[in-house]
Amino acid sequence: MKMIIAVVQDKDSNQLSNAFIEADVRATKLSTTGGFLRSGNTTFMIGIDDERVDEVLEIIKQSSSKRGEYLVPPVNVEGQAETTYPLEIEVGGATVFILPVERFLHF
Amino acid sequence: MKMIIAVVQDKDSNQLSNAFIEADVRATKLSTTGGFLRSGNTTFMIGIDDERVDEVLEIIKQSSSKRGEYLVPPVNVEGQAETTYPLEIEVGGATVFILPVERFLHF
Amino acid sequence: MKMIIAVVQDKDSNQLSNAFIEADVRATKLSTTGGFLRSGNTTFMIGIDDERVDEVLEIIKQSSSKRGEYLVPPVNVEGQAETTYPLEIEVGGATVFILPVERFLHF
Ligand code: NI
Ligand code: NI
Ligand code: NI
Repeated sequence: MKMIIAVVQDKDSNQLSNAFIEADVRATKLSTTGGFLRSGNTTFMIGIDDERVDEVLEIIKQSSSKRGEYLVPPVNVEGQAETTYPLEIEVGGATVFILPVERFLHF
Repeated sequence: MKMIIAVVQDKDSNQLSNAFIEADVRATKLSTTGGFLRSGNTTFMIGIDDERVDEVLEIIKQSSSKRGEYLVPPVNVEGQAETTYPLEIEVGGATVFILPVERFLHF
Repeated sequence: MKMIIAVVQDKDSNQLSNAFIEADVRATKLSTTGGFLRSGNTTFMIGIDDERVDEVLEIIKQSSSKRGEYLVPPVNVEGQAETTYPLEIEVGGATVFILPVERFLHF
């Protein structure tokens, strides 16, 4: 049994929640602010058997990796785009800790 | 020193808080949503000396174990109960992790 | 890599946040209530390389140690102070756990 703590961007939080549900991974969402990923983030706490750790890491990676997204350039007041090409920005990213668990119980 | 993380149903949260206070166990309540116990839950974080771990587990067990509760059958619009006997439903339940602590300090 | 969990009084939370930013320490703030320090508290979760643990502990100590503060005695309804001298009260205090981390990843 391990405890996985994953800090992801708020914008990736819903997709990750759904991916966990689909894979039957029980994740508890902690209300958090600030921190590892500068902008708004969400922290997931997951208790998982050792043999499923890689599966959980893959789910987090799929839903929250750093990636480029294209931003449509805003149109200025004169009706002309400030730039003539889409801007690529970096979004997402996950910070993940795997902690040892001495005992796991449920009542 | 261990860190005990206990996820319990919201409905058991107040009773468990009071039981911790009565036993002089310092517990910090994390704001959490979803997760291990499907419905609304509360997560407690407890730092405790090794020799008191079993005592804390017993407190959690007493306040939050899975148990049957009898639900009075609702009366329908014709004034007749849908069933003629009380329904037993399962409530409560706690998911508990015990984590090793390398150092514990207070300033 | 270690995970440091620090529970401090709400009144010390902003100063500690700023000290972490200044030292380039990524800290995630958990929404918490009650617990180790009786009055309102804030919990910080910090992932940090082993060689920076002492630095982080020093930052927490500087921003949140228990200390005496002088309280100006309130004036009563007759316009006379209840006491003729300032009262020293104890404020602050931090409870800190250092947990082992098995793996640390970011995507
Ligand atoms: Ni089970
Ligand atoms: Ni002490
Ligand atoms: Ni990196």
